Amino acid sequence: MSKRINVVVWNEYLHEVEMEEVRQIYPDGIHNTIAAHLRKNSDISSVKTATLVQPEHGLTEALLAETDVLLWWGHGAHEKVEDEIVQRVYDRVQAGMGLVVLHSGHASKIFSKLMGTNTDELKWREDGTCSTVFTVMHNHPIAKGLPDSFVVPQEETYGERFEIPTPDDIIFISSFGGGPEVFRSGVTFTRGLGRIFYFQPGHETYPVYHQAEVLRVIENGVLWTAPDEMTKPIQGHRPLD
Amino acid sequence: MSKRINVVVWNEYLHEVEMEEVRQIYPDGIHNTIAAHLRKNSDISSVKTATLVQPEHGLTEALLAETDVLLWWGHGAHEKVEDEIVQRVYDRVQAGMGLVVLHSGHASKIFSKLMGTNTDELKWREDGTCSTVFTVMHNHPIAKGLPDSFVVPQEETYGERFEIPTPDDIIFISSFGGGPEVFRSGVTFTRGLGRIFYFQPGHETYPVYHQAEVLRVIENGVLWTAPDEMTKPIQGHRPLD
Amino acid sequence: MSKRINVVVWNEYLHEVEMEEVRQIYPDGIHNTIAAHLRKNSDISSVKTATLVQPEHGLTEALLAETDVLLWWGHGAHEKVEDEIVQRVYDRVQAGMGLVVLHSGHASKIFSKLMGTNTDELKWREDGTCSTVFTVMHNHPIAKGLPDSFVVPQEETYGERFEIPTPDDIIFISSFGGGPEVFRSGVTFTRGLGRIFYFQPGHETYPVYHQAEVLRVIENGVLWTAPDEMTKPIQGHRPLD
Amino acid sequence: MSKRINVVVWNEYLHEVEMEEVRQIYPDGIHNTIAAHLRKNSDISSVKTATLVQPEHGLTEALLAETDVLLWWGHGAHEKVEDEIVQRVYDRVQAGMGLVVLHSGHASKIFSKLMGTNTDELKWREDGTCSTVFTVMHNHPIAKGLPDSFVVPQEETYGERFEIPTPDDIIFISSFGGGPEVFRSGVTFTRGLGRIFYFQPGHETYPVYHQAEVLRVIENGVLWTAPDEMTKPIQGHRPLD
Repeated sequence: MSKRINVVVWNEYLHEVEMEEVRQIYPDGIHNTIAAHLRKNSDISSVKTATLVQPEHGLTEALLAETDVLLWWGHGAHEKVEDEIVQRVYDRVQAGMGLVVLHSGHASKIFSKLMGTNTDELKWREDGTCSTVFTVMHNHPIAKGLPDSFVVPQEETYGERFEIPTPDDIIFISSFGGGPEVFRSGVTFTRGLGRIFYFQPGHETYPVYHQAEVLRVIENGVLWTAPDEMTKPIQGHRPLD
Repeated sequence: MSKRINVVVWNEYLHEVEMEEVRQIYPDGIHNTIAAHLRKNSDISSVKTATLVQPEHGLTEALLAETDVLLWWGHGAHEKVEDEIVQRVYDRVQAGMGLVVLHSGHASKIFSKLMGTNTDELKWREDGTCSTVFTVMHNHPIAKGLPDSFVVPQEETYGERFEIPTPDDIIFISSFGGGPEVFRSGVTFTRGLGRIFYFQPGHETYPVYHQAEVLRVIENGVLWTAPDEMTKPIQGHRPLD
Repeated sequence: MSKRINVVVWNEYLHEVEMEEVRQIYPDGIHNTIAAHLRKNSDISSVKTATLVQPEHGLTEALLAETDVLLWWGHGAHEKVEDEIVQRVYDRVQAGMGLVVLHSGHASKIFSKLMGTNTDELKWREDGTCSTVFTVMHNHPIAKGLPDSFVVPQEETYGERFEIPTPDDIIFISSFGGGPEVFRSGVTFTRGLGRIFYFQPGHETYPVYHQAEVLRVIENGVLWTAPDEMTKPIQGHRPLD
Repeated sequence: MSKRINVVVWNEYLHEVEMEEVRQIYPDGIHNTIAAHLRKNSDISSVKTATLVQPEHGLTEALLAETDVLLWWGHGAHEKVEDEIVQRVYDRVQAGMGLVVLHSGHASKIFSKLMGTNTDELKWREDGTCSTVFTVMHNHPIAKGLPDSFVVPQEETYGERFEIPTPDDIIFISSFGGGPEVFRSGVTFTRGLGRIFYFQPGHETYPVYHQAEVLRVIENGVLWTAPDEMTKPIQGHRPLD
């Protein structure tokens, strides 16, 4: 029997519209490339997409209420995401919704709000060199089916200190071809009843989301952050009987 | 489609033989009571048992090689477990086998060897008062189907400081009816490729393993520690090409 | 040679003004009781206080810029703390300032913002029974000089699930005399360059901050969260040479 | 007032005797090079050394009983360390002694016994390329005085998966000049009352322990693992009054 996971892939969707080189790689947008992959998984029952320019950024109360896992890709327009929608996503994560944050989504309002740190801070450089992603925790469900390491042929360089709290688990650590930088590239957190996975690869000017290993990590991240059936905590005033 | 988890329940199996009061609660031994429950789960394909007095304590190389999760209950005869068998279990955990350690199994050679601490050390008292097990991590798979808290009507009191390393996750914390003690009663660890879950309830003179919530926690622990399909780490000498 | 730690004790300071029973316990306010204790420590070079009704809640840019550790007690007026001041404290924690959050301060805007969770959520009951605080991590600097456990004669009951992320360290766990509740009562976190310590005891209607063990924990918390001399991370765009 | 830390630097001390190239770098042995540096720190009151060929490997009961921090460098003769001495060191760590494990000491009996994993397992290659050590946790006392990153001009390459349990803290992550490998090169653990710090740099054929940054990390590691005054846990049978 399959799980019944409802997924929404959120994408800023500006670079693909505005930049020819990105549009050639992702003619229908990064969100649709990722969504098409996720639809092949039989544990995932629905995959919808949402983007910045839609009313409420496409993230209505009704949609989020039935969403099990939300993916987030953003880059240049983090500040244009309305605080009300950020709060809505935050509330859903607290209630158990999974969240998969991709690449430059590290600097999004929602990721920073959930982490409690300035997650936009890290070293970076667009030099288009390769990146090697090493599995550090081979027995984690997010590493399932992945090799001991794999190479992303062209990627933006991200380097530590990445301004995140100590992760629950570090599943991947990456190095980069153009310099000595290292990066905790696959990390998990828990906030409220929700599970969060951040994954670094995915610069928009390279075809990273067409690479099988990257798609597999994202797919695993969706399965792992999807909430199990769970008992809600009893909280509040509890008088003695 | 079900997972195919092969389980072995290991029990010292001395109290049930030697003590009338324990035999009345567990006529076939603690191991068979737990095994009977686990056999009802369709993700578990086989449940075998093994005990101290069997050759090699019932834990032959052949049996362990095909075991996905081993459960361990011991109390008075930890020192009678042969070091060679302890090493064999240790090696299997490193290779990915799950291990669920129950109650007084905290003082077993295998748990201490995997923790790297004197895990026999804690406060204890046999006063037969109740214990309340509070869920602290409601979204962990091991808490699935469990209430916010539940009472074990009669249990041995265990108290902190429990001499374990900082756990990966603390899923349950217990209090006890006869004194102020608190105890991290459900905790997880990773060692090598193996997952480990320790669960406190289960004193032999009370019918703890006949209680539905306790059995559910153990069942969840088996499912969670069972290894996924995984890639083995590449290690050793790696010359440059 | 002493460290030179500058401390500010922030207190909402409403109950002591409005409620006779609280005023009798803390005639000069909780903040001044705690401050008087901290002033006895030779590693602490200055202890100032600040309260809600002061301009900018007493937390000016100039004061915070030279503050090494801020203590926070609040209860009924969390919503009256200006967001701008919360952001100011948040920024200082990211830059390295220590933060010690006391008792009902768990529901403050600043603690929730740093945790990324709804930290106001927990079980609670004002029944005035005792609480026993067990040391779980005897070798942590915050446990220095404290006994294996100690009793707070009268305290508000707090119970799990406390809605915090998995702490870096759990130093104390408490039980309560009137019910089975347990609580992670002394926990640490890191956010940015700042260290955070939350400590549960301190209900305003009991003389908790006159108790030696409680004051010692708070004093240790100040010493531990105080920033060491440290190198700031290099972050931002880092082109290849 | 200074702390009064008694330190012992243990070294296998075979390469320096047997290999001309190592002897030229460390004419008096790695242990004496490190000890000479530590003696300059006024918080460290005594620095002794001990080596494999001495009776009891130089680690008598009397010496260990008064040792606050033990440093461990070994490589080719791990198996020659007597189990009885390993147990003695283990017991002292449980009782609070700090342990700093250096470079190939990762494969020592004592480190593996404390970790509960096969810590000899990692990728390695002797290619003499540079290594860059990145600080990941700038506010940790072990990073005090260290830059954002520093280069070890020649070092053995170590690569993940390093077979350790999830560390309490990851302070440094390294990359290497000859290949894509990454390594959690500065990590901490707690076992019993003892603190443990592992630090990767230090291959015997390069003058790594003559480098200021490396010596500073080791010195910081000694200060951080040194036990504070602490209360011993109360454990064992605790009857009701």
